[in-house]
Amino acid sequence: MLALAAHPLGIQVVSLDPGTLSPAAQVADAIVGAYDDEAALAVLAQVADVVTYEFENVPVDTARWLEARVPVLPPPAALEGAQDRLAEKRLFEEIELPVPAYVPVDDLDGLAGAIEDVGLPAVLKSRRLGYDGKGQAVVRSTELAEDAWRAVGAVPSLLETLVPFDRELSIVGARGRDGATAFYPLVHNEHAAGILRVSRAWEDGVTADLQRRAEDHATMLMERLGYVGVLAIELFQVGDQLLGNEFAPRVHNSGHWTIEGAETSQFEQHLRAVAGWPLGPVHPRGSAAMVNLIGTLPDAPDILRIPGAHLHTYGKQAREGRKLGHVTVVAGTPEACEAAVGEVLEALRGI
Amino acid sequence: MLALAAHPLGIQVVSLDPGTLSPAAQVADAIVGAYDDEAALAVLAQVADVVTYEFENVPVDTARWLEARVPVLPPPAALEGAQDRLAEKRLFEEIELPVPAYVPVDDLDGLAGAIEDVGLPAVLKSRRLGYDGKGQAVVRSTELAEDAWRAVGAVPSLLETLVPFDRELSIVGARGRDGATAFYPLVHNEHAAGILRVSRAWEDGVTADLQRRAEDHATMLMERLGYVGVLAIELFQVGDQLLGNEFAPRVHNSGHWTIEGAETSQFEQHLRAVAGWPLGPVHPRGSAAMVNLIGTLPDAPDILRIPGAHLHTYGKQAREGRKLGHVTVVAGTPEACEAAVGEVLEALRGI
Repeated sequence: MLALAAHPLGIQVVSLDPGTLSPAAQVADAIVGAYDDEAALAVLAQVADVVTYEFENVPVDTARWLEARVPVLPPPAALEGAQDRLAEKRLFEEIELPVPAYVPVDDLDGLAGAIEDVGLPAVLKSRRLGYDGKGQAVVRSTELAEDAWRAVGAVPSLLETLVPFDRELSIVGARGRDGATAFYPLVHNEHAAGILRVSRAWEDGVTADLQRRAEDHATMLMERLGYVGVLAIELFQVGDQLLGNEFAPRVHNSGHWTIEGAETSQFEQHLRAVAGWPLGPVHPRGSAAMVNLIGTLPDAPDILRIPGAHLHTYGKQAREGRKLGHVTVVAGTPEACEAAVGEVLEALRGI
Repeated sequence: MLALAAHPLGIQVVSLDPGTLSPAAQVADAIVGAYDDEAALAVLAQVADVVTYEFENVPVDTARWLEARVPVLPPPAALEGAQDRLAEKRLFEEIELPVPAYVPVDDLDGLAGAIEDVGLPAVLKSRRLGYDGKGQAVVRSTELAEDAWRAVGAVPSLLETLVPFDRELSIVGARGRDGATAFYPLVHNEHAAGILRVSRAWEDGVTADLQRRAEDHATMLMERLGYVGVLAIELFQVGDQLLGNEFAPRVHNSGHWTIEGAETSQFEQHLRAVAGWPLGPVHPRGSAAMVNLIGTLPDAPDILRIPGAHLHTYGKQAREGRKLGHVTVVAGTPEACEAAVGEVLEALRGI
């Protein structure tokens, strides 16, 4: 989606990906190479005016190697913070964004102590490489602690209190090279089986105060990191309180609705930011939502016949639990948008 | 732009173009081959489920050769009608769309007779290969008739009365495989030096009756041709009357505003039609306009800082008089849109 947004802006994209079947390679020039393949990285550094990433598990060493040769934005420090849940929590604490109570866990003994400190129920989360619910296990009793430890891979983790949150929100915004910022409205995210299923981008109990506080947290995080580009923070809303869950130093799934739903998409916005160009207006076009297409793609006409529905497939090979595309829904009112979301979910049932 | 629209829909594009620097080849697989290279055409016929075109001077023989092997939409008959101004005029006459008075001209003697029949001033237009004002010459006096004949290349032509039209409008719409049609609002086109410069897509003296009549003409033309895909008719408005100027059997420059300005872009609409999928909604998002970028591209930030302006570059090599891109402007009101169009034109001055 970044490459598709780049072309009309006159930005030439060269992707580096370890695989030969990457989505970007279908619409842009591509280098196939491992993230630690210095010959491949050298080619990228030579042809690029600026390097960015849209996958937060690019090794920090790779980003730093490139940074010595070509501007890398967002800065590698942001990657570093996002890759380790402990570093991430400490960043949130530094900017005074409250987080759920947590304790680092390095081994099974540590887990027993952590359960005493944090209490149950709690969630054990591996510090690294977690996504879409992977690397997480809920701990409801001390008897099942060892199962949880094995479920996350018996690796350094955090035990976090299971927050009885009202809902998950995310704030997606951008910071330009000049320090200017622009934020989309808070988005309400609904998960199924640990994977984001629906994001709704209309004001649904989101007060101006809540929006402002979310933006302030994101601004402080971006300033702390010297950030340039689009960033997302996933937040838990508990009553009127916002807790930091995690952040993504990249365009974010909960911002995919912006392609048709906002005046400037998060993809164009990210490109504007890293190119040092002015950020674009972020106001929504009506009420918008996004439904992820997971595991199997529907037949295109089944989606395209729904008014306001826009299909986005990613050119990925199908696999269970894999995000293969999404549908953006844009309508004049939240009610009409919700009705269309219902039609999309209905069309996806049983495919 | 068709290829960029195809990817999210899960449609894989393979382009065939005689040149190695085609815009489509930058974002899709490509076959480089002349239009009469049967080996190249055979590859295309083999890999494609359906073949379409976005250039009306693809030889009809090429389209017919392919049609014997794979569905070609729009049908080659539409190409044939659009490539010859005489055939085009007769199609318009068949569907009872009035046209300016004209006489076919095959040689210099014929031109003298045509001037007597049509009167002066008149326009001499070559029957084939005219675009962007090329292949046309205004004849204001019999003394200069020979100059005009040479200016159009001394080839079979039409002499057409110079219509004192109020303005040029175009109707852009689509017809699906099931015969369903959908039309964008009439667009008002302004030219500079024979090349389309600005299209405005808001109601500016366009009555519901004018819109309906334009749609009826286009529907009749599409039915007459068994048409599938997006088609545009350029019309002269003279008072309350509509005269047919020419038609394009393809996505059209005066429809480029639909990428951001309408619920479904003409590019997605064309793909939906030729794929046999349902057509999408065509309602505009606010007031929209389009400014062509001709000969030279501006610096991106000079356009991107204008609220509501969306940049589209085509990846073409710069050349005087060549359309290298366009800017779509979308705003809440015609007045705001006009102001933004003014800013875009100002930014383009002197580049």
